[in-house]
Amino acid sequence: MSYDKTLKIGVAGLGTVGAHVCKILIENRDLISKRAGADIVLHAVSSRDKTKDRGFDSEGLVWVDNAVALADIAELDIIIEAIGGEEGIALDLAKASLSNKISFVTANKAMIAHHGAMLVNLAEENGVSLAFEAAVAGGIPILKTLREGLSANQISAVYGILNGTCNYILTEMTQTGRDFEDVLKEAQDLGYAEADPSFDVDGVDAAHKLSILSALAFAGTPDFENVSLKGIRDITALDIDAAQELGYRIKLLGMAKKTERGVEQSVEPCLVPLSEPIATIEGSLNAVYVEGDFVGESLSVGHGAGGGPTASAVVADIIDISRGHVIHPFSMMADTLSPLSIADISQRKGAYYIRLVVLDQPGVIADIAAILRDCDVSLQSVLQHGHNPDQPVTVILTTHPSFEANMQKALHQIHDIEAVVETPYQLRIEDFKTAI
Amino acid sequence: MSYDKTLKIGVAGLGTVGAHVCKILIENRDLISKRAGADIVLHAVSSRDKTKDRGFDSEGLVWVDNAVALADIAELDIIIEAIGGEEGIALDLAKASLSNKISFVTANKAMIAHHGAMLVNLAEENGVSLAFEAAVAGGIPILKTLREGLSANQISAVYGILNGTCNYILTEMTQTGRDFEDVLKEAQDLGYAEADPSFDVDGVDAAHKLSILSALAFAGTPDFENVSLKGIRDITALDIDAAQELGYRIKLLGMAKKTERGVEQSVEPCLVPLSEPIATIEGSLNAVYVEGDFVGESLSVGHGAGGGPTASAVVADIIDISRGHVIHPFSMMADTLSPLSIADISQRKGAYYIRLVVLDQPGVIADIAAILRDCDVSLQSVLQHGHNPDQPVTVILTTHPSFEANMQKALHQIHDIEAVVETPYQLRIEDFKTAI
Repeated sequence: MSYDKTLKIGVAGLGTVGAHVCKILIENRDLISKRAGADIVLHAVSSRDKTKDRGFDSEGLVWVDNAVALADIAELDIIIEAIGGEEGIALDLAKASLSNKISFVTANKAMIAHHGAMLVNLAEENGVSLAFEAAVAGGIPILKTLREGLSANQISAVYGILNGTCNYILTEMTQTGRDFEDVLKEAQDLGYAEADPSFDVDGVDAAHKLSILSALAFAGTPDFENVSLKGIRDITALDIDAAQELGYRIKLLGMAKKTERGVEQSVEPCLVPLSEPIATIEGSLNAVYVEGDFVGESLSVGHGAGGGPTASAVVADIIDISRGHVIHPFSMMADTLSPLSIADISQRKGAYYIRLVVLDQPGVIADIAAILRDCDVSLQSVLQHGHNPDQPVTVILTTHPSFEANMQKALHQIHDIEAVVETPYQLRIEDFKTAI
Repeated sequence: MSYDKTLKIGVAGLGTVGAHVCKILIENRDLISKRAGADIVLHAVSSRDKTKDRGFDSEGLVWVDNAVALADIAELDIIIEAIGGEEGIALDLAKASLSNKISFVTANKAMIAHHGAMLVNLAEENGVSLAFEAAVAGGIPILKTLREGLSANQISAVYGILNGTCNYILTEMTQTGRDFEDVLKEAQDLGYAEADPSFDVDGVDAAHKLSILSALAFAGTPDFENVSLKGIRDITALDIDAAQELGYRIKLLGMAKKTERGVEQSVEPCLVPLSEPIATIEGSLNAVYVEGDFVGESLSVGHGAGGGPTASAVVADIIDISRGHVIHPFSMMADTLSPLSIADISQRKGAYYIRLVVLDQPGVIADIAAILRDCDVSLQSVLQHGHNPDQPVTVILTTHPSFEANMQKALHQIHDIEAVVETPYQLRIEDFKTAI
């Protein structure tokens, strides 16, 4: 088949994602070109090592050592960035590409979370496209869904399981009863977690994605700094068990909700009712739940990361650009976007799960209950396993919905009780009442 | 806010869907216009009764009695058809609208399943858009997902719960143990099912939708005539129970699968393992599962019908058209589409559930087993509840995967056994091995 139009693609970075992008462009070229209405041709790549076998035939491609030099190849129509990192080469390439009027497609959530607003302006000034579907939940076209599929709706909430590594670790802990460090070590050995796991397990990666979802849902620009953040490092096997006993599963949730006080943005491990579909999403899968005023509730489940799903999203962006879709990546023209009005998270209400280690002495629970009462936090249940006079025992409390600020105040006072021998640990209970 | 461009909308039919479209266009006008990059204005409606309160302010709108006359209002940019029906007024309006160079958006699955190929040609000839996201699973933007979000992939399978009424009836039967007729009657009284329920319960509605999904997934045009079709009327409370006992739930599934012999298209009630997420989709919800070569598996769940979700999809199409997205509704230019190559369904393999009513006599099961053996159908289990010499008893058989044609031959021979006193009833067992 012949086409009136040819689009030449450059790919920066040939790690898992970059190599998979090349693979799809080669293997599915006919299908992709038909859908794009143009011949989509892989033209140039950047990588230091030309010799490595990456699973695709690189014969005849233009190679550059320095990724930023791709932006100087005048024939390129679209540059794909698969290098990663909030700034550095990735950002230099983004700026150079857009300034040189080459459309730019990326899977880089850190860069978009921090510099998305600047880059979208640069793209519009230069009349080219910026697209980053692959940055959030690669296998689920959730940015397109928010930007286009549900565009008629006022969105009230978006929440999801946005980090496959954390969901894998929590699933393993739940299924095997093992502790966090043990499972993390195994995940690292298997290549599911990075040597430095902090971006994943401290919730930073999920917060990057959440800030992008929140921008799209609420017609603003990403505000990563205002995502309340808590990772999964301190969750113990005991927490997993206690949650199960109470009828919950622990999931790292990214949540963006519209309230009268502004948009609440958080990433934190939460207790989710076992009956909720999102509680059943296991392993490295991602899931995103959206609620809109006319569409009601919806849930999408798919693979969040990995070469195939991520590259599938990158190439979908290429096809969209070729089709001439004027993509406003944040759903509207850059000059109509404004920073989100962010709610003070300490003013939100929530029910809590609290793990305390206390000396098993008469009166300790009474002291704790009195503090909670004085801080206006209403106790729902108290769970003490075993009895061991004067020795440390674990006590699990749950509360009714209370103001977060009151909860924090109470926890500080509880920490000061002499018989409380560890820092209290609390997790939010998200009692969604979804009909999905 | 002021816009350079104004798009005037006409809505044909003010039933639940049409009235909800008007409601969204009025209530969310600011948001919709910002996202569309144009002022989106409801201009004209067609309906016979001007006086009825439909939940929106119709002051100042142009009213016409005959929907087809909307196509003569030269100021209109887009006409929404919410009348329904495979032909008649809906099809007349579609042709008149596209011929008069007015873009056309519809929720009408019957019309698209039967006339989609003709209409998409007419739209392209006239340089205007045809869009029908609302025709399939309104609350799930699944057509956009197949056409754009997953456009880089070779799709191997699409299946789903595509009819909310059937899913509601099967869910009620499962939860209450009641029989089909009883639950149908209640659903009709509650307004969940039509007075003439055949389009829903005989699987026709799901088959319309499946033929559209199949066209998009496999780059063809809808081929409704070649959807193998079976409804849910003959499912009994006993089948629901027996399925549960065997570890399955009965769901009406639409399935389109790519095989070496062509595309298999079917709508039929199937036994789905209880552990599969699709088995847990309850009530009137819809769910669509897609499998692609790079993206892997994904599942989307949402509200399939009802005014809000359907109108949400209609207005998303309006916004897409306004944004200047050149929509090829079947994912590529009309002249590159070709009829799907359809597989002979009798040549597919499948495991089966068989319900027989036989006289409780020695040797009957042996005769049945011999027939299955001679027809090359391998028996997996036999389940007989109770013992009642010489009286009719129900026997449930399950088979290993066998050719459908062999299965049908065996059932005919079994029916001819004198001690078999009812027509054998069989259901397909779909042992998906999804990782979702």
